[in-house]
Amino acid sequence: MTAQRADARRNYTRILAVAEAEVAAHGVDASLEQIARTAGVGSATVRRHFPDRRALLEAVFSQRIDALCSRATDLADADDPRAALLEWLAALTTYATSARGMADVLLPAPTDYGSHVNACAVRLGGAVDPLLRRAALAGAVAPDVTTADLISLVTGLTLATEHHPDPAAEAHRLLALTVRGISPRG
Amino acid sequence: MTAQRADARRNYTRILAVAEAEVAAHGVDASLEQIARTAGVGSATVRRHFPDRRALLEAVFSQRIDALCSRATDLADADDPRAALLEWLAALTTYATSARGMADVLLPAPTDYGSHVNACAVRLGGAVDPLLRRAALAGAVAPDVTTADLISLVTGLTLATEHHPDPAAEAHRLLALTVRGISPRG
Repeated sequence: MTAQRADARRNYTRILAVAEAEVAAHGVDASLEQIARTAGVGSATVRRHFPDRRALLEAVFSQRIDALCSRATDLADADDPRAALLEWLAALTTYATSARGMADVLLPAPTDYGSHVNACAVRLGGAVDPLLRRAALAGAVAPDVTTADLISLVTGLTLATEHHPDPAAEAHRLLALTVRGISPRG
Repeated sequence: MTAQRADARRNYTRILAVAEAEVAAHGVDASLEQIARTAGVGSATVRRHFPDRRALLEAVFSQRIDALCSRATDLADADDPRAALLEWLAALTTYATSARGMADVLLPAPTDYGSHVNACAVRLGGAVDPLLRRAALAGAVAPDVTTADLISLVTGLTLATEHHPDPAAEAHRLLALTVRGISPRG
């Protein structure tokens, strides 16, 4: 690595650390300008690494997404396909409620329906699909349910419980209701 | 009515009409200052009627909340308690996805867990409780499910589908999944 590239790398690491603190404090309202000031670099440098707020959020939550992907891979050959899927949904709920702004990374952005793709959602989808397919083969989930549906439902109840005094507990309670159904009898 | 009170009334009506247009265009980001400018009154006048953004949103969506309350009352003595509840949930989903900002009125604000109360949610709750109780008595819904749970679930999936090309269709699809359950078998 050249001295210049090592410098750029250190810069990126410092900016990302500042960004994590800023996102923890302000969620999606994190300010790129404030991050530049705190990191002691110019706004242009921050924008070179993170062209927009979404790129910033995706970088900040990248490790959590990786952890959720690993969890899905570990659970994909568990004995009970239904229990494995529910365990993963519970992990997703815990992660999504633990960090302000993560729900926004999980949902498709307005542009995702055009050419741009939500990298986090694609990575998660790839990791969770085998788990979901096994649960469907075992008859535990209807065959038309997609990973994107599961992520939308969990993200939705995360957003709906954001201002609750105990968001995680409330989100898990609503997840249980979503799993068993409001009124499963036809 | 005195001339002064008639004046105040006309002012309120004009401000509310401007507020409706502003909320339709900008959702929860509607600006009280912009409303004052468009209505040709001072900011202080707007703030006298609507002390904060939430009061503004509640006034703007008041008629829709009334319509949802009437619908619940009409459905409360329908022949099939389960079908009646599902019909009301579908109506709630249609209303919540039809207007930007309505989801925020339905959810408790951060302050609601303290002394302030979400007037819209309380009104809706009162109207929907009999419908839900009948469905529970008929065994169509578990007895521990509350109206607040139903509103949270529908609002969540409204928020999660906001950027979809067809938010209403996507929200209704996810509602059907929530009603039948991701994996109802234990």
